Amino acid sequence: MQIINPNNCCGIDIHAHMVPATLPAYIGDRLPNAWPSMAPAHECHRHVVIAEKVYRSVSDKCWDVEKRLADMPGLGLGIQVLSPMPELLFYWLKAQDAQQLLRYLNEQIGAMVAARSAHLLGLGAVPLQDVDLAIDELRFIMQAPGFVGVGIGSNINGVPIGNTRFDAFYEACVDLGAAVFVHALKPTGMDRLLGPAALQQVLAYPSDVGLAAASCITPNLMARHPRLRIAFSHGGGMLASVLPRLEQGWHVIPALSEAVTDPPMAQAHKLHFDTLVFDTPALRHLVELFGASQLMVGTDYPFNFHDRTPVHRILAAGVAEATASALAYTNAERFLGLDIYK
Amino acid sequence: MQIINPNNCCGIDIHAHMVPATLPAYIGDRLPNAWPSMAPAHECHRHVVIAEKVYRSVSDKCWDVEKRLADMPGLGLGIQVLSPMPELLFYWLKAQDAQQLLRYLNEQIGAMVAARSAHLLGLGAVPLQDVDLAIDELRFIMQAPGFVGVGIGSNINGVPIGNTRFDAFYEACVDLGAAVFVHALKPTGMDRLLGPAALQQVLAYPSDVGLAAASCITPNLMARHPRLRIAFSHGGGMLASVLPRLEQGWHVIPALSEAVTDPPMAQAHKLHFDTLVFDTPALRHLVELFGASQLMVGTDYPFNFHDRTPVHRILAAGVAEATASALAYTNAERFLGLDIYK
Repeated sequence: MQIINPNNCCGIDIHAHMVPATLPAYIGDRLPNAWPSMAPAHECHRHVVIAEKVYRSVSDKCWDVEKRLADMPGLGLGIQVLSPMPELLFYWLKAQDAQQLLRYLNEQIGAMVAARSAHLLGLGAVPLQDVDLAIDELRFIMQAPGFVGVGIGSNINGVPIGNTRFDAFYEACVDLGAAVFVHALKPTGMDRLLGPAALQQVLAYPSDVGLAAASCITPNLMARHPRLRIAFSHGGGMLASVLPRLEQGWHVIPALSEAVTDPPMAQAHKLHFDTLVFDTPALRHLVELFGASQLMVGTDYPFNFHDRTPVHRILAAGVAEATASALAYTNAERFLGLDIYK
Repeated sequence: MQIINPNNCCGIDIHAHMVPATLPAYIGDRLPNAWPSMAPAHECHRHVVIAEKVYRSVSDKCWDVEKRLADMPGLGLGIQVLSPMPELLFYWLKAQDAQQLLRYLNEQIGAMVAARSAHLLGLGAVPLQDVDLAIDELRFIMQAPGFVGVGIGSNINGVPIGNTRFDAFYEACVDLGAAVFVHALKPTGMDRLLGPAALQQVLAYPSDVGLAAASCITPNLMARHPRLRIAFSHGGGMLASVLPRLEQGWHVIPALSEAVTDPPMAQAHKLHFDTLVFDTPALRHLVELFGASQLMVGTDYPFNFHDRTPVHRILAAGVAEATASALAYTNAERFLGLDIYK
């Protein structure tokens, strides 16, 4: 077991994003309204343009491998696992159009991780609006070097990811050894926000990803796919606030105990979560609630709103040394399937 | 300070519901489709019928004061504060029609609390779809004996309760000394649930009430009404999961710090929450996050899905004795304005 030194360590960050420096031109018959492109911005930055609007201005750390590597020791990280910025998953395009884009993203991720294979791994993207096509793309991803799995949204065009329509996809993930990282995307509850647009990420993202995790528990996803490795962003979002209530409801509401085969708490202990909650007491609470074996570093690097002290925070939580190592890297090794090489 | 004996104690339950045994016939010109009625059910129960469907079957503890009183020692309670079952708030009716119903509910609450004024207090209902009419009804409530404030929904026909359109109402609450108890109602996020209808209460309620609390923070409700006493059901729902993220967002996202005058965490420490989270570690986490001065017993009594050990749980949390007393009753005394009589 490595000693954890947060300034030069071994953390594995399962929640880190990439955006390519350029995006491809559309090559089909009818340019979709939402087709994205990259445009010049201020120094070291480029705009992501979607539907003719700047969706976000991102720094070159999104695509510049060496700049990322330079930041990793300060974050306490030895490995970052790259997934695309979720807004680029494009479930809302025609599946064939989306696949064009996602193939390009996957190739870019592949090139980034190939450049520094000891420190970067990839989570690819698949067009889940068409499960068959998603499985095809998953096969492409999983035969490419450096990929450990796939990043998906917390809902697919509003359909919760625990829906049985995705069963064949999860089965393929198990067969191909792909870990699944679920990231908040196009959240529900936007009608309840009062304030700047950033509240979508700040408040509605954790709400949606928590509901996504619950949507895997209530229809018994892990009973259907016991070998599936699936993790949720933002510490599982609001799931932490509602899980004991879901457990209690399961005990006292007959319709719930009939529909949900295993107790919700036990099911939650089979899911994985990142540590991205920006707070030491909250992190300690997640350890207590979900179990020390289910949590892994997540940072949202390199976006502005990323956790700059993910490994420091694990140490600040005052957990046992074995728990700190588990959160920093051994859980991620197991989740990503890296431990089989040891 | 009283010694807390959970089997015969002094707890004050701010989250307890009533339903009257009968509901009045409509006396206007056009019967609204959603006008409710009560119908006979199995022993000791009646059906609440809304829009010609059984919304819920409720026990006679909803209206039978002596049966409630008999249960209170076992719950560790000395006082219950009654508010109507939220589905009876009828924000979705024409305001004048709703006021007919709510006036009847308020009279029924008044009669219940008058029967046992040492042990029961009331939170009335107001037609918030019309702020002027709501203030009129609030005046009626607050001149009646036994009322300490008002129960409102987590949104008013989809409008978050932190919206400035309700400012005059909150101002009236401050002027009249009314505490405000916010209960989840008609929640957002229903499109993300997979499973039985009960998931609305189990998962979407805590999501909505958390967003409601956030909707008070982001537009600075407590800065506009510094003397307002406002509490949120279900331990503030998902707010606990997102508050540190909101605080961090406030520090790093300029649009947020421009819009939100005081730090979100400091604002949350001015809101109140009940303890209805069905879990000892979760309760401890709420104490750590929101502060021991902001939490009060809430049970959801007498519905099936109520907390049967609210005061036991406070003791089980292993908090200091002063904190236990604060959670059990002194915070509620302050929140409800009872301490001024001491």
